[in-house]
Amino acid sequence: MTKTVITDAFWCHYKELVRKEMIPYQWKVLNDAIEINIERERNDASIPNLKSHAIENFKIAAGRTKGEHYGWVFQDSDVYKWLEAVAFSLNNTWDDNLKCIADEVVDLIADAQEEDGYLSTYYTIAEPDNKFKRLRGSHELYCAGHFMEAAVAYYNATKNEKVLDTAKKLADHIDASFGPEEGKIHGVDGHEEVEIGLMKLYHLLGEERYLKLAKYFLEERGKDPDFFEKQDIEYFGKAEKGGLASCPKSYFQMHKPVLLQDTAEGHAVRLVYMCTALADIAATTKNEELSKVCKRIWRNIVDKRMYITGGIGSTVIGESFTLDYDLPNDTMYCETCASIGLIFFAKQMLRIEAKAEYANVLERALYNTALSGMALDGKHFFYVNPLEVVPKKSMIDPTKSHVKPVRPQWLGCACCPPNLARLITSVEDYIYSDTDDKVLVNLFIKSEFSKDYEDGTLNIKIDADYPKTGEVKLNITNTTGRELKVYVRKPDWAESVNTSLDGKQVSLSEEDGFMVVSVKPGKVEALIEIPMTLKRWRTNPLVSENIHKVCVSRGPQVYCVEGVDNGENLHLISLPKEAPLKYRRDENLLGGVGVIEAEALRYDDKRSDDKLYYSEDAVSAKKQTIKMIPYYAWANRGSNEMRVWLAEE
Amino acid sequence: MTKTVITDAFWCHYKELVRKEMIPYQWKVLNDAIEINIERERNDASIPNLKSHAIENFKIAAGRTKGEHYGWVFQDSDVYKWLEAVAFSLNNTWDDNLKCIADEVVDLIADAQEEDGYLSTYYTIAEPDNKFKRLRGSHELYCAGHFMEAAVAYYNATKNEKVLDTAKKLADHIDASFGPEEGKIHGVDGHEEVEIGLMKLYHLLGEERYLKLAKYFLEERGKDPDFFEKQDIEYFGKAEKGGLASCPKSYFQMHKPVLLQDTAEGHAVRLVYMCTALADIAATTKNEELSKVCKRIWRNIVDKRMYITGGIGSTVIGESFTLDYDLPNDTMYCETCASIGLIFFAKQMLRIEAKAEYANVLERALYNTALSGMALDGKHFFYVNPLEVVPKKSMIDPTKSHVKPVRPQWLGCACCPPNLARLITSVEDYIYSDTDDKVLVNLFIKSEFSKDYEDGTLNIKIDADYPKTGEVKLNITNTTGRELKVYVRKPDWAESVNTSLDGKQVSLSEEDGFMVVSVKPGKVEALIEIPMTLKRWRTNPLVSENIHKVCVSRGPQVYCVEGVDNGENLHLISLPKEAPLKYRRDENLLGGVGVIEAEALRYDDKRSDDKLYYSEDAVSAKKQTIKMIPYYAWANRGSNEMRVWLAEE
Repeated sequence: MTKTVITDAFWCHYKELVRKEMIPYQWKVLNDAIEINIERERNDASIPNLKSHAIENFKIAAGRTKGEHYGWVFQDSDVYKWLEAVAFSLNNTWDDNLKCIADEVVDLIADAQEEDGYLSTYYTIAEPDNKFKRLRGSHELYCAGHFMEAAVAYYNATKNEKVLDTAKKLADHIDASFGPEEGKIHGVDGHEEVEIGLMKLYHLLGEERYLKLAKYFLEERGKDPDFFEKQDIEYFGKAEKGGLASCPKSYFQMHKPVLLQDTAEGHAVRLVYMCTALADIAATTKNEELSKVCKRIWRNIVDKRMYITGGIGSTVIGESFTLDYDLPNDTMYCETCASIGLIFFAKQMLRIEAKAEYANVLERALYNTALSGMALDGKHFFYVNPLEVVPKKSMIDPTKSHVKPVRPQWLGCACCPPNLARLITSVEDYIYSDTDDKVLVNLFIKSEFSKDYEDGTLNIKIDADYPKTGEVKLNITNTTGRELKVYVRKPDWAESVNTSLDGKQVSLSEEDGFMVVSVKPGKVEALIEIPMTLKRWRTNPLVSENIHKVCVSRGPQVYCVEGVDNGENLHLISLPKEAPLKYRRDENLLGGVGVIEAEALRYDDKRSDDKLYYSEDAVSAKKQTIKMIPYYAWANRGSNEMRVWLAEE
Repeated sequence: MTKTVITDAFWCHYKELVRKEMIPYQWKVLNDAIEINIERERNDASIPNLKSHAIENFKIAAGRTKGEHYGWVFQDSDVYKWLEAVAFSLNNTWDDNLKCIADEVVDLIADAQEEDGYLSTYYTIAEPDNKFKRLRGSHELYCAGHFMEAAVAYYNATKNEKVLDTAKKLADHIDASFGPEEGKIHGVDGHEEVEIGLMKLYHLLGEERYLKLAKYFLEERGKDPDFFEKQDIEYFGKAEKGGLASCPKSYFQMHKPVLLQDTAEGHAVRLVYMCTALADIAATTKNEELSKVCKRIWRNIVDKRMYITGGIGSTVIGESFTLDYDLPNDTMYCETCASIGLIFFAKQMLRIEAKAEYANVLERALYNTALSGMALDGKHFFYVNPLEVVPKKSMIDPTKSHVKPVRPQWLGCACCPPNLARLITSVEDYIYSDTDDKVLVNLFIKSEFSKDYEDGTLNIKIDADYPKTGEVKLNITNTTGRELKVYVRKPDWAESVNTSLDGKQVSLSEEDGFMVVSVKPGKVEALIEIPMTLKRWRTNPLVSENIHKVCVSRGPQVYCVEGVDNGENLHLISLPKEAPLKYRRDENLLGGVGVIEAEALRYDDKRSDDKLYYSEDAVSAKKQTIKMIPYYAWANRGSNEMRVWLAEE
């Protein structure tokens, strides 16, 4: 058994923001009790944007009120993710009133559940005869997975038995309906997620059926690439057209059996959710075959399809991966949920093998794209996280309509905000990994971790003010009477790390990117000094969009320039190779951030003759001190340009 | 009266290609008598792609056969444009057999026309009760305009009276149906074109009603931006949704009255067709107000929204203009038809004012994007003319699915191929302009022009082998007894032009970009030596896509690099500023082209560690002799990469 308590300044600020602002705010949204502007995440009139209606849908399904379902077929999941965030928040800060509201939500969900365990307000209300018949787009199992996750979290936080009973009843109903046995549906949901939920139930309850069912869903996926079309024909007489039916099979990871997949294809969130469950099962069952699939897909994402911000999904169409080294900065998707899913995936990979690279990517996604998903006020949210924005292009060019320069108050498809809320409220779960034989310190977040062994306890206290500084103190206590090892990540961006034990400088051995601290019975104080160097980054030259471009980072944070600091037409700025980068902390800016300044060049924005094309090489540039801010904090000062990658001289 | 006869090697080759290959080929396509692969111009399942059915539609509408309409609502225009190309081709090379086929098509069209003059096979067959009730998308007037253009051309070529009678009957029916008078429809077609057709009828027949009606349509456009929605509600009870109804009003140039428009907005072909008619009326009626609108929109296109290839339309969505200086090279539209429309527009502008810049743009569009629309075999066609293609991205990235690396055999929306056919077969009409007081030589195409005055004739014989060489000889004969002036364009890309008259070097005076040759009664031989310098071009720095990039041209031809000559990953190539450009003619390549070579740099395409991001500045480059070919000739050697703008060192 392990336990983590977080006391970190950077993250507790966000946790409080979610607790005080976002959770009550989302509660109002779910109840249609707030006048806000719900924006579509892209120009598509079919996206609902009038109201959430999510709680009302449950009331109707529960028979408490009358009415029609409104919103996405997966609207229920907004409520489940809210409930999960509430659960995590109660772990951090108990709140009787909030628990009371959440208990009522649990009652409502239980009331909306049908006798046999089935749960989906849309199908209960609108299409009761079509349950499990439209799995391509029904999201019934997707929503079920989110409810299972919420139920486990809420049970862990409150010991509410009803939520767990409801989830078990739902899982059992699904188990009775799907599987390889005759009479059951041999198929999968169009959106992976139930596998994650089933695994969480399994980890809590040890019920083997749930593990088996999760594994079944993954192994079944792609075995029959035409499964959805066959369902259409079996139940409705003809193959559906348009909408999700027009997406390629890879959108659903249905193009070939999961065990044969070796690249990250299709809808990015679906892919990383699939991989999260796959890696969980692989780690849990020590399944080498599944591990290999996970490692192959991981390699493909991280080596060829991931933005430097930890964003994934290179195109808006299908919110999808495209191909190796295709990383456009201004038309990509980089959905907040996809980076959150990448964090889930990385966490499970750390259970398969203790390699620091998983934690490196986890940290990259966490401190950049994931955090960028929410405004500093906790009440505005990005779905899409670009690396380059010119507001007027987003306004007028329909192919960039999804690239919003300002975070909306809420989104027509509201998957991202509550996903971020549940991540932030549970961020402590990512600091340490407890694999069979190793305790890993992945993140440098002020916290206390303890693990009980049969013969004693390992306790790790991290004292840090990261990423403000790179000084990390670990007070480790070992009461087992045996020597234990603690593996502390050496960030991939850090060239040299100073380490000392009990005040004495030492050189720690390294294993797969972790520095190994051997802890004899008793106490040891390890001081890890990570130089927060300002670094320039270039991209593999096969990425055509970034050739001759540079970006800057400090510690885990990627930096960007904004128009408000540097003037518009940011493409005119060039950063000379030799220009020194200067760092200073500005506590009055954006809630307190580190600012990087450099002497750059700005090319003239026009020529005297105003021609479009000209033959002379008459470009001239003036010096300009540019100011860079951490990427996560962009778009908090109104609509303006932003750019991560700058031209390099 | 003027007459032009063309004998140019470069263009007569194309004319013969159209006559021998394309016209018979398209005839088979129109009759569904050829097995070809009709490709959709973009990934949109609603685009018809099974067959043309265009002739069959006429037969059904004429009552000769029974069946249903198939294809676009504007499928008829394919036949009209074919007929127009046939007419122009007969002007060049008489062909009894072809005339016989075309006469039968005229009979068929006349049979498909209704008693009252109405003509649209779709509405006659499929929606006889909805004539003129769905003007947003019905293309009834658009098709009518194309028929009028074809009728004028075919009458001029053959004196076939029936085609003219049919066109007059159609024009009269439209005149009786539309206009400001009570009882008539106060509205316009969703796609401009009828205005052009009406003006051509007017120029032939002098019928003022046609001029008045064309002017009415233009002045009515945008006066009531909600006209289409009002039609929906009036006739069908509710506003249509989806499809064209989801396009912004600017798509149809309906966002404000045409006379108040000052930027090029919306669907690019629609816009330039509108401007063509507007400029024609302005020139014809000496209307200053209309001229001003034309000049404003021209300035906006040419100074801010046009590719160096003469392509227009920066986005696939709505095939539209976007905003000033937004010129992406790999996602643009640059429809072949749009550049053809720009050529039409330029030609009319030359009638408003004798400024060489109109002819400069005309030449740019003609020798680059327009010509790129057809393969060297005359049987494959581009709809979209990109400035940068990576085939695997077009295959996999749905936002680039419209950017085809190889010309299809035919297109689901077949507007471009016959548009190009009618342009090429009538290219002589663009060489000279005969304004009230000036004869302009716009293009350097071997030909003979004569103009009859009351007191004699002006005859100009151009001898040239352009763009192979820039040596242009003009033998000018003036029998009027007065001094006449001939205005010869000095290309905007030519820095110095050597001129001599009757063997004596002279310095000609210049007016608005034209060199003025004064021709006393008698004969004069003017020799114009245009240095076909190899030139480097840069783009206005406000175009972010082209910053620090260069492209190369020779004469009117923009050059590009292709993967087949230079290897893939063309983005790795950099052209140093000082690298000499070498030109050589290769008669065995691509039907004979000029090739430009340069010592460029190619950056390493990978790093040993295969990482996606790295901090070291370890890029290295090797010298590579690159080979550039004229843009129009790209994609004739299979699927491969292409790029116009190269990184500049």
